[in-house]
Amino acid sequence: MFISFEGIDGSGKSTQSRLLAEALRAEGRDVVLTREPGGSPGAEEIRRLLVEGAGERWSPETEILLFTAARRDHLERLIRPALAAGRTVITDRFADSTRVYQGATRGDLRGMVDSLHETAVGLEPDLTLVIDIDPATGLSRGKARGGSEDRFESLGLGFQEKLAAGFRALAAENPARVRLIDGSGAPEDVAARVRAALPA
Amino acid sequence: MFISFEGIDGSGKSTQSRLLAEALRAEGRDVVLTREPGGSPGAEEIRRLLVEGAGERWSPETEILLFTAARRDHLERLIRPALAAGRTVITDRFADSTRVYQGATRGDLRGMVDSLHETAVGLEPDLTLVIDIDPATGLSRGKARGGSEDRFESLGLGFQEKLAAGFRALAAENPARVRLIDGSGAPEDVAARVRAALPA
Repeated sequence: MFISFEGIDGSGKSTQSRLLAEALRAEGRDVVLTREPGGSPGAEEIRRLLVEGAGERWSPETEILLFTAARRDHLERLIRPALAAGRTVITDRFADSTRVYQGATRGDLRGMVDSLHETAVGLEPDLTLVIDIDPATGLSRGKARGGSEDRFESLGLGFQEKLAAGFRALAAENPARVRLIDGSGAPEDVAARVRAALPA
Repeated sequence: MFISFEGIDGSGKSTQSRLLAEALRAEGRDVVLTREPGGSPGAEEIRRLLVEGAGERWSPETEILLFTAARRDHLERLIRPALAAGRTVITDRFADSTRVYQGATRGDLRGMVDSLHETAVGLEPDLTLVIDIDPATGLSRGKARGGSEDRFESLGLGFQEKLAAGFRALAAENPARVRLIDGSGAPEDVAARVRAALPA
């Protein structure tokens, strides 16, 4: 089974990915926990180009190509081999992030994202969990975390609000695959909502 | 005018790009000399991922995505602005390199190269000059140069021979745009052949 977590920066999706991996391992499942951009050695190198530096460092089109390159590497070197071995793969972000982030920047590029996805990736998760949170709360959490990976946070609250709306729209468009999870409250409360969203 | 030089490693195309730029400048033309992968600060960073490291570091598909990302950045940040300002752009490699290198590695990927080119690049040079040389001579010149950018040379003579054949086929397919230049002899002799291939 292939599960992705999605949401804005600071939504708590990384914590929830980890908590779900721990819960499933405690139930005896063989789980690979990974993340994007990155997740394989080559994709992690591409990640550095994407998340560091100035907000306008890349055009949206170049950014889509780089995210797709990283995803292709991640898919070939980690996700497909793990799924083929019968393992459960949980990823912190996947293709929906590119759809929503690029859609928030330049709505007319959604077609390019979808076309590249089809040409170079072609796989969707079995289940996608969007951790839904107030954009101002997410942004302040993301900023509090500090570090050099602040390129998207630097684009401000208006951008985070567009992202949150984009993820909600994606859940509405794909009800069979994408579930919206209320991200408010303590991490263990959110984790219980996540666990309840999984097939028994 | 937009001119590209193509050919295998060690063919002398970098020298010929420079000699043509000097010749046109001496005639009073405003020339931008650039190269791929690279040519803009972002694309140069992607270049490092592509030309360094082990031969099998990236799959052919990931490689195509990275070359296309670098080309998009180069096009946006350098080539299009220079052409719009009425300058002549000479580039050491462009999209034909991706067509031929990937075609030599995995012939079935030519469709992916062309599809990505159309989606993300969409520009062809006005004139492409392929410097044609014996593959064994090219390989020994490339190796003699040394340095860390030896990822493609490391794939061996059989690979260089496939590349040379690929560039010749490309010239045959695109007679209006692509000219094959005999790369044997002294650099100034080759330069005279190059200059003769340009419109007066």
